[in-house]
Amino acid sequence: MSEFDLVIRNAHCATAADVFDADIGIKDGRIVALAQGLKSAEGTEEIDAAGRWVLPGGIDGHCHLDQPMNDGSKMADDFLSGTRSAACGGTTTVLPFACQFKGQSLRDAVEDYHRRAKGKASIDYTFHLIVSDPTPDVLNRELPELIKEGYTSFKIYMTYDDLKLNDREVIDVLAVARDHGAMVMVHAENTDCIAWLTERLLKAGHTAPRFHAQSRPMLVEREATHRAISFAELVDVPILIVHVSGREAIEQIRWAQGNGLRIYGETCPQYLFLTADDLGLDDEHDHSHGAKCICSPPPRDKANQQVVWDGLESGVFQVFSSDHAPFTFEGPEGKYAAGADASFDKIPNGVPGLETRLPLLFSHGVLTGRIDICQFVALTSTNVAKMYGLYPKKGSIAIGADADLTIWDTGLDRVIRNADLHHNVDYTPYEGIPVSAWPTLTLSRGKTVWANGQYHGQAGHGQFLHCELPTPARPKSRGQKP
Amino acid sequence: MSEFDLVIRNAHCATAADVFDADIGIKDGRIVALAQGLKSAEGTEEIDAAGRWVLPGGIDGHCHLDQPMNDGSKMADDFLSGTRSAACGGTTTVLPFACQFKGQSLRDAVEDYHRRAKGKASIDYTFHLIVSDPTPDVLNRELPELIKEGYTSFKIYMTYDDLKLNDREVIDVLAVARDHGAMVMVHAENTDCIAWLTERLLKAGHTAPRFHAQSRPMLVEREATHRAISFAELVDVPILIVHVSGREAIEQIRWAQGNGLRIYGETCPQYLFLTADDLGLDDEHDHSHGAKCICSPPPRDKANQQVVWDGLESGVFQVFSSDHAPFTFEGPEGKYAAGADASFDKIPNGVPGLETRLPLLFSHGVLTGRIDICQFVALTSTNVAKMYGLYPKKGSIAIGADADLTIWDTGLDRVIRNADLHHNVDYTPYEGIPVSAWPTLTLSRGKTVWANGQYHGQAGHGQFLHCELPTPARPKSRGQKP
Amino acid sequence: MSEFDLVIRNAHCATAADVFDADIGIKDGRIVALAQGLKSAEGTEEIDAAGRWVLPGGIDGHCHLDQPMNDGSKMADDFLSGTRSAACGGTTTVLPFACQFKGQSLRDAVEDYHRRAKGKASIDYTFHLIVSDPTPDVLNRELPELIKEGYTSFKIYMTYDDLKLNDREVIDVLAVARDHGAMVMVHAENTDCIAWLTERLLKAGHTAPRFHAQSRPMLVEREATHRAISFAELVDVPILIVHVSGREAIEQIRWAQGNGLRIYGETCPQYLFLTADDLGLDDEHDHSHGAKCICSPPPRDKANQQVVWDGLESGVFQVFSSDHAPFTFEGPEGKYAAGADASFDKIPNGVPGLETRLPLLFSHGVLTGRIDICQFVALTSTNVAKMYGLYPKKGSIAIGADADLTIWDTGLDRVIRNADLHHNVDYTPYEGIPVSAWPTLTLSRGKTVWANGQYHGQAGHGQFLHCELPTPARPKSRGQKP
Amino acid sequence: MSEFDLVIRNAHCATAADVFDADIGIKDGRIVALAQGLKSAEGTEEIDAAGRWVLPGGIDGHCHLDQPMNDGSKMADDFLSGTRSAACGGTTTVLPFACQFKGQSLRDAVEDYHRRAKGKASIDYTFHLIVSDPTPDVLNRELPELIKEGYTSFKIYMTYDDLKLNDREVIDVLAVARDHGAMVMVHAENTDCIAWLTERLLKAGHTAPRFHAQSRPMLVEREATHRAISFAELVDVPILIVHVSGREAIEQIRWAQGNGLRIYGETCPQYLFLTADDLGLDDEHDHSHGAKCICSPPPRDKANQQVVWDGLESGVFQVFSSDHAPFTFEGPEGKYAAGADASFDKIPNGVPGLETRLPLLFSHGVLTGRIDICQFVALTSTNVAKMYGLYPKKGSIAIGADADLTIWDTGLDRVIRNADLHHNVDYTPYEGIPVSAWPTLTLSRGKTVWANGQYHGQAGHGQFLHCELPTPARPKSRGQKP
Repeated sequence: MSEFDLVIRNAHCATAADVFDADIGIKDGRIVALAQGLKSAEGTEEIDAAGRWVLPGGIDGHCHLDQPMNDGSKMADDFLSGTRSAACGGTTTVLPFACQFKGQSLRDAVEDYHRRAKGKASIDYTFHLIVSDPTPDVLNRELPELIKEGYTSFKIYMTYDDLKLNDREVIDVLAVARDHGAMVMVHAENTDCIAWLTERLLKAGHTAPRFHAQSRPMLVEREATHRAISFAELVDVPILIVHVSGREAIEQIRWAQGNGLRIYGETCPQYLFLTADDLGLDDEHDHSHGAKCICSPPPRDKANQQVVWDGLESGVFQVFSSDHAPFTFEGPEGKYAAGADASFDKIPNGVPGLETRLPLLFSHGVLTGRIDICQFVALTSTNVAKMYGLYPKKGSIAIGADADLTIWDTGLDRVIRNADLHHNVDYTPYEGIPVSAWPTLTLSRGKTVWANGQYHGQAGHGQFLHCELPTPARPKSRGQKP
Repeated sequence: MSEFDLVIRNAHCATAADVFDADIGIKDGRIVALAQGLKSAEGTEEIDAAGRWVLPGGIDGHCHLDQPMNDGSKMADDFLSGTRSAACGGTTTVLPFACQFKGQSLRDAVEDYHRRAKGKASIDYTFHLIVSDPTPDVLNRELPELIKEGYTSFKIYMTYDDLKLNDREVIDVLAVARDHGAMVMVHAENTDCIAWLTERLLKAGHTAPRFHAQSRPMLVEREATHRAISFAELVDVPILIVHVSGREAIEQIRWAQGNGLRIYGETCPQYLFLTADDLGLDDEHDHSHGAKCICSPPPRDKANQQVVWDGLESGVFQVFSSDHAPFTFEGPEGKYAAGADASFDKIPNGVPGLETRLPLLFSHGVLTGRIDICQFVALTSTNVAKMYGLYPKKGSIAIGADADLTIWDTGLDRVIRNADLHHNVDYTPYEGIPVSAWPTLTLSRGKTVWANGQYHGQAGHGQFLHCELPTPARPKSRGQKP
Repeated sequence: MSEFDLVIRNAHCATAADVFDADIGIKDGRIVALAQGLKSAEGTEEIDAAGRWVLPGGIDGHCHLDQPMNDGSKMADDFLSGTRSAACGGTTTVLPFACQFKGQSLRDAVEDYHRRAKGKASIDYTFHLIVSDPTPDVLNRELPELIKEGYTSFKIYMTYDDLKLNDREVIDVLAVARDHGAMVMVHAENTDCIAWLTERLLKAGHTAPRFHAQSRPMLVEREATHRAISFAELVDVPILIVHVSGREAIEQIRWAQGNGLRIYGETCPQYLFLTADDLGLDDEHDHSHGAKCICSPPPRDKANQQVVWDGLESGVFQVFSSDHAPFTFEGPEGKYAAGADASFDKIPNGVPGLETRLPLLFSHGVLTGRIDICQFVALTSTNVAKMYGLYPKKGSIAIGADADLTIWDTGLDRVIRNADLHHNVDYTPYEGIPVSAWPTLTLSRGKTVWANGQYHGQAGHGQFLHCELPTPARPKSRGQKP
Repeated sequence: MSEFDLVIRNAHCATAADVFDADIGIKDGRIVALAQGLKSAEGTEEIDAAGRWVLPGGIDGHCHLDQPMNDGSKMADDFLSGTRSAACGGTTTVLPFACQFKGQSLRDAVEDYHRRAKGKASIDYTFHLIVSDPTPDVLNRELPELIKEGYTSFKIYMTYDDLKLNDREVIDVLAVARDHGAMVMVHAENTDCIAWLTERLLKAGHTAPRFHAQSRPMLVEREATHRAISFAELVDVPILIVHVSGREAIEQIRWAQGNGLRIYGETCPQYLFLTADDLGLDDEHDHSHGAKCICSPPPRDKANQQVVWDGLESGVFQVFSSDHAPFTFEGPEGKYAAGADASFDKIPNGVPGLETRLPLLFSHGVLTGRIDICQFVALTSTNVAKMYGLYPKKGSIAIGADADLTIWDTGLDRVIRNADLHHNVDYTPYEGIPVSAWPTLTLSRGKTVWANGQYHGQAGHGQFLHCELPTPARPKSRGQKP
């Protein structure tokens, strides 16, 4: 029996801290050796990566796949197409959401979601729990039990009628997270401000997609961010503010971090590559193509984009995710379902981005010198693994880790075209944006899922991951400890 | 010939990003293999590290050894005792200073310093250049030449009569650094404020050591920090603010980082473990034992210590150094040379700390949970190597890196005693502080220099390191680009 | 007929901007002449103020008198004793609250409150409206009508079960204020945080008065302050944050003011003269004397007191009020009603302070040099008048203004004793605090209500004041204008 | 003998705090009575101000008149034309500068300046002392003596080769101010940054006026502002930062004010009405008309203008001055002396503005609602008087004050034209800006100096004012007190 199933030769590796050249020895889906001139038995499969970056596979810590919706809309990507698209863009682990409906038990939501995933995923996955109905039973029994079983991260919403928690519920969920060591992701927007603005806009006949941005100005996100931070300080528990869109929210997070609180931040491609102007896109037929870019919080402006880039560079953000929300544009369940006259508040929120996340950041972040290769790995893989209890199985090129790896082509002269992507969505908001880097090979536990422009994944190869408790970088906060 | 000279078995390794278990194969002083169950030829030397942390050797980015002094004072540690002390505390690379006197050429200073180091160091070393006289020849010829030769970091002083640069000189040195890619360390205190306060204190008869702290209040450091940041913004070049002591200076650095500037920060053990009260230490004989803790900036108070800890946790600081300044207490060149009546402004500035730096931070930072093991490695080794162009040769446990390694004992029940230390200084300011961690083994390029409480170093083993250009984590600033 | 009813000779006058010496001619209760050597007909009443400050009478913009309570507690001061106490301390106008109960119409609350005031007040008064149930009828009809009738300021609560508004209700009330020009006072504390902490404290058996402060830490106030500011920005309307207690809330207000928002601030004597330690006051009998100092937000610590002083000096605060809440200590409706075992959450909130407000600030603010005499007048009278639409009838020494005046003794050697006060409360939290200034004379529209230590007021002399729209100092905000 | 020399009837008066309607009785140049229906002897001169604002005459706390220049340039306005222009724009007191040359005694500078003023001024005036050579004799003898004689304010420069002080000199001058109660005005720009940038710009051939702005970017002013604040904190003395131009400097001042320091701020019309674009103005002949707008700090951009407006509204600034610097455009000593090819660094710095200061702020500040009438009076008159020890003689409409008054026309439809102004400068940078308010009458100590578009001033009417110690609004700082 050979010592290795696969050896990647001459890998120019980067981790979240290091850059080194080595041969990578892989056995049973795991990295078991890193060495110069690694000896291997004859017949061992070999890949030559000479001249190329070899990186830990991407981990998308925030994406939506086949998530049942209350409002009749339907996600175009299930675990089959979603993991396919992810793999083709260099992502080897996805973390979608098991979403509790009001009145539903979390257990039901989890079991339903397992059924949806079963046999479909071509890369590994786990679930965050969306807690929308924190009954005493959920707080006192279900959550603690599920945490023990490996569901160690929750997401809570401060807006959206069918999902939002009130302040007391937020505090109660955070208290459970603190007592049991779980990580809470917070969608921070003030729901009453949005409702008030929306009413006024609609009353004034301002229904076009571009008014979506006006219905959720920066202050709406800033306020909720400050509030969420205050609750985390009260309870003395770390939280992650997701999809942070611009300066005012970033200032709140920086303030908290500077005051010794463990507040983490995530941002997404839409806040680096889109602006509110994209919501006003017209075409010759009608005025609704802006609907393609509707997501919440909305993209801001160029100045805010720069501040988000600065936040990536300076360490305000720990995680860079896609927030992939696969709603089609055309079709009866799509963003354009109501046609050109649709009111912005009725258009499904979210943009697709699983497959483009890594190439966009690599091309416009690493290759421009804005962030270095180690920051790229940290933001897209290592930190995500630590944040959600997947480390050290996932998130690095290290002895013992799963052989989830990507080999990158750089120096490309491409633009993003939806026709080239592998999701089931009929558009990408990034259409036409140039990228100079793309994975040439993606390995999931040593198996090729994407190579040379071809998808090789197998439905069912992907395994569900039971998460450990999170171990994000910074420890002890200094909040209230009543 | 064996594949390895040495194998460390069952190493529980940490890098600045990762934690993994592996056997480490070392050949010709470098790490050449990391694997589980590494096969080695019979007779290969083996060390079993089971149950222990194995970390990259410490890099002390800021220490003074055998530095010629203008004022008649003399450093007690030369490269022999200095590197010995460093090695016994887990440090495998030191970066002391080749100091230009006014009127001297930098080349002379460098050559003199090489003579002092030659044949003495037991671990590797390189030099920062202290630029005290930036003549046109220094700026236009010497510095560019020396940078090319591997002297890629300078230190400049905004105070101390024999070293300080005026504002224009600071700007000119930063401009050279920008044009040639070097890193500038800045000692930031306003010299005129200090002089004004000192005159008033002395006039009032306030000469005891504790008045040293009053002569350099926080605002003195805050102002110079803001000014240095402004010059770096003007020139558009990264800088490192060294030995940052407390809140007001940290706020300036955080402000700069939050505005997209590449401003780095260093702090030191004296700002975590000493306070201004330590300058007022009395004993039964006289009132001058406070002199032992005189350094600049001075230690502040407990609240500032907490803010410095927070800065380590939250990433304001990239580097944790000793600023080892080996002046004895007793003796004709010591801090107590002038006896109990010495005026604070005549007492040599600086405290020893090469050997205690890592154990103090490991014990009170990592083992208390304030920072995690990866942050420890980053702050004490990896970031230092990147900041000063020693990476990837130094600073990590990675294929191709030098086998500069430490194996740690934890769970100890010790206190720091100067009697146990290996420097030539007759006191430590940390006397009596408990530590629960200490290296049990230190390897310099695969050679044992410290093991089981015994020093095994050999004078002359240590090599001078030609530095590459720095590659600190964050890139592009947004400063003025005239 | 004489030109003047009364002439005050040799008055050393201060207004919010000016200091001048003049004779003051008063006719029909108003100031009609200011001059040097004012000629008056024989027999005109004259008062010689030589050597004394003559100031506009105090306006207490925030006090509770005879306010019906939901919980069975009862206020000890009605309009008779309340205005008496106010007058004896130099206050000539009070602004208590017509409080709407849930389910009640505002009109009913106002009419009930008029009945309570009628024939009792010895100085002038008007009402703020406490809006606790903003039904559509209240928002669309009652408030606009009442504003037109001269009730131009509201108070809203973000905590207290029987009064608090939810976020949407806050926004709706602010929108009415914006549309009709009214001023909204906000009690900013996060009610859910308080409830969560209180539950945990009580569960742990922590019921003593000192735990009141722990149940409402600074973050609770900071969060609600930020939220209220955000709503004001959303709606684009000025608001006044009342009874601000310390640094973190002040920082929010300063941030808003620095960003061009019209956010005003009020603080009170309890945040200058009490600390949380006062809630832990014991005496020989039991542990409940701390109950005397229970108010919300709670007093903080010495460092926060200093920041509040700084805020008064630097202009963060526009208004200095008493928040007089006249609950007795003894008696069946008092703070001690439940005896030594009372739980902190059952003790009526608030402290008395109508009579001591001005002497405390004059003695410890003006005479210590912390604020100047013009700031004193602005904070205690002029700004209050402008904030609530009473200016120029009230709030200054100017031609045409009501002759509401105080003449001050300074250089006194007194301490505050409840025995010397004229309210109906059986204690003062300021017992024993020295004061060196006290009014020697108070005039209400030219009539003496307090002179030489004797109360001369007449029930019914005080008139209800219909308020104009507010005209506080700073104009145009830059908030959202949808 | 009549009781009054002059009565202004039906005056709609505003002070820094109050608005009231009164008749104003004036005798011997002072306000002696304010009353409704003031009785006056037959034959007393009367002016009917019905329907018009009557305000305290403007005090221009920062203007240059007939100041001897080192560099051969010459000011076009002396005390004759300067005070004429001031009076025609509603200003009744000017504070130009007695400027010490290096090597000169302050006494000489003062005496020379008295000679220049003597017999020329038509309105009252006093001098600030520009300290450019703080020798021990100046610090220890001249300044204390001059302060006692009524020269209680100094100006110091942190840039300009012939005027600038180094850091120690700044501290020494501040220490004198502290010991003797004087006020120090600081021109805050970092001189070395400017020199470094200027050298690089000139080397690159960038000599046009618009590069003036690039040679003094915001950071240059921000740094020096922070440094000046730090020195004031060190010495524990209030200072006034003059001609503040934008956000970054304002943030420093706000920070200081929020930390309890007595740091005052002044801004000028050029930072409200000009931008850096105005330095790039071309005309058909050449590219040098931008020279007209060269001043230091330079005008910034629209966003900074807004922040300056916000600072006026929110109280960051206490003083609004013209910084009138009367250099002509044409002529051998003018800004255009070197023609179209002049290098920006050779063009005299400064813009004229004595006459337009008040109408611009009244029209664009008061009448737009940005600031209220009381703020206008405070910023342009009362605060200036208090800041420089002229209060209560100057700065208000109050009993005993000098009858320096303006009566305003509003609702005008005018634009500023240099042809209409009364200075000796051949341009105004505000040419073409609309104004809707202008004084219709200006009184200096009861004498008409400007009425109905005609100048009535008399050379020599203006008196030199010996200043008291300053009494600006806020007291006690919390700085270092060594």
